[in-house]
Amino acid sequence: MNSVNEVTQAISSQDASWRRKARDRLNQLTMPHWALGRLMDLAVDLAGMTCSLNPPVQRKAIVVMAADHGVTVEGVSKYPQEVTAQMVANFVHRGAGINALAAVAGAKVYIVNMGVAADLSELTRSGAIVSMPVGPGTANMALGPAMTRAQAVLCLENGIRFARQLIEDEGYDLLGVGDMGIGNTTSSSAIVATLARKGVLEVTGHGTGIDDEQLQHKVAVIERVLQANRPNPEDALDVLAKIGGFEIGGIAGIILGTASLRRPVVVDGLISTAGALIAHQLAPQTVDYLIAGHRSVEKGHRIALQCLSKEPLLDLNLRLGEGTGAALAMPLVEAAVRVLTEVKTFEEAQVSEANA
Amino acid sequence: MNSVNEVTQAISSQDASWRRKARDRLNQLTMPHWALGRLMDLAVDLAGMTCSLNPPVQRKAIVVMAADHGVTVEGVSKYPQEVTAQMVANFVHRGAGINALAAVAGAKVYIVNMGVAADLSELTRSGAIVSMPVGPGTANMALGPAMTRAQAVLCLENGIRFARQLIEDEGYDLLGVGDMGIGNTTSSSAIVATLARKGVLEVTGHGTGIDDEQLQHKVAVIERVLQANRPNPEDALDVLAKIGGFEIGGIAGIILGTASLRRPVVVDGLISTAGALIAHQLAPQTVDYLIAGHRSVEKGHRIALQCLSKEPLLDLNLRLGEGTGAALAMPLVEAAVRVLTEVKTFEEAQVSEANA
Repeated sequence: MNSVNEVTQAISSQDASWRRKARDRLNQLTMPHWALGRLMDLAVDLAGMTCSLNPPVQRKAIVVMAADHGVTVEGVSKYPQEVTAQMVANFVHRGAGINALAAVAGAKVYIVNMGVAADLSELTRSGAIVSMPVGPGTANMALGPAMTRAQAVLCLENGIRFARQLIEDEGYDLLGVGDMGIGNTTSSSAIVATLARKGVLEVTGHGTGIDDEQLQHKVAVIERVLQANRPNPEDALDVLAKIGGFEIGGIAGIILGTASLRRPVVVDGLISTAGALIAHQLAPQTVDYLIAGHRSVEKGHRIALQCLSKEPLLDLNLRLGEGTGAALAMPLVEAAVRVLTEVKTFEEAQVSEANA
Repeated sequence: MNSVNEVTQAISSQDASWRRKARDRLNQLTMPHWALGRLMDLAVDLAGMTCSLNPPVQRKAIVVMAADHGVTVEGVSKYPQEVTAQMVANFVHRGAGINALAAVAGAKVYIVNMGVAADLSELTRSGAIVSMPVGPGTANMALGPAMTRAQAVLCLENGIRFARQLIEDEGYDLLGVGDMGIGNTTSSSAIVATLARKGVLEVTGHGTGIDDEQLQHKVAVIERVLQANRPNPEDALDVLAKIGGFEIGGIAGIILGTASLRRPVVVDGLISTAGALIAHQLAPQTVDYLIAGHRSVEKGHRIALQCLSKEPLLDLNLRLGEGTGAALAMPLVEAAVRVLTEVKTFEEAQVSEANA
């Protein structure tokens, strides 16, 4: 089951009866009512996703999708395009932010080449990265579509297939998604503007750290991108093809594949959440399997999360991407499960209950 | 060095040169400038506390201080006093919230009897709990001082001694503090009102879950407590003795002892932060070693954190205590250190830097 249609149709809501069972148990735990707040809300969600009072979340992986963006020639980033490939090498040598933070979570990091504009054959051959490139970077979307519709479908299919491989073949329980791609906040802001139906100014931030003048330029480029492409907000594949990125499509695919197997997926910042918006447009129930890891500094992220009705777990002024915010939130997911499975009820622990 | 005076005099500010060294390295990491936001701020703090670019935080312990409160006879809590001792037993049998959450952090839990109004000799003999009771619960502070000034000093000394034992003898790097004591939000709100110089209404919340009518009663009781005792906000020992609790004094002692050894201590919710306010009043530099784990639902906690100029790491609608918010934040502390020690610089990783 790897076609996009099959997978989107397989995604169903959280199970209400397992949510209720979880809530019933949490109501009886030896603490004031719902005193662990959002951890308990999350525990109910996890039970509803996985149909279990012991939702498996022990085996964790972060999938970092990497690709290049033709729009970088418009001068939207502080960094040259070559940094995408250099950072892929940095991930492989465990020198990046995501390596450090995934280690805290006990999560394995998978680096996926979705379309980096560089020769990564050596890293592919050695098995250091997963290779499923859809093209050598997207086309410059300021002049026309970033990719063909067939390429957009392929991004999703690749992501879906890899998610299902990780869960079904490798036995992972909890996935997190992240990104690497110079220029990809430009694409992500364009996606959020389109799918959230907001003005470009409202959803465009400083990305890797551009100044106010550069931000004005970036906004103008995104305006041109939207003018040139006129993506249809009712058609997520049209949006992905015209103004997306290969890694953003890959992330959407990971999310769809994970949701179709009733597993939780932790979303990182602006780029990952742009991928989640694409997935959500294709299959609205996808949101039931999303956990928002954090709220990024990028202003478009706040709006994207609102679109998905998601309240993030963390708010630490992060704006790195790579899946770092997802990795940081994973211990909280594990904590939610431990509350559900390890804390005793008043009866089990022989503790007196509250007065009426 | 266990006397309160010796210890408070030994507490000095974070080291500016180690803070600078940490900042210099973080500025060069392979990511947009300061893209891991508050984790990087925390890494600078940890370097300044420990005088190291590899601040040790691997060996973690949560100290849960337990004691009873005479003021419970005024009907300030939904739970009967016996729950304090029952929860101590629950901690020992690993059935409580803190057991579940400390496991996520890889932290050992120490339960300390600072003055529970029950016979805990069996748990003491078996080594399941640490026993340093200052009395069989405090006196009813609505009628007069909760404890004598000598008892207040003893609380601090016990906490100091235990912190130094954990760090110097047992080799712990990172401590977190938590509490158990039916009635202790009443004492903590009274302390916050006094030391933050706020009205009782502003700092008093629903505690274990009392309704609005019970809250009015609790506020009235705290008003009576303050009238009956008139604690001197310039004299932390006077505040602790008149309106404190044995576990709150113990927490203040843990914080002072930890700060005197230049180690970080993660603070939990309202009760722990009331202890931190006491410690801060005795030695203002103590704040340099405090990490605010989370922002609790209890409204007095927000004000107490403001008093200490601390922005918490988490905000998850928790209101349990026991050190749960401190335990949840520990992986973030570990993450901050890993960013400082494991992420490579642009030069080390041969990644191109940003354009000027």
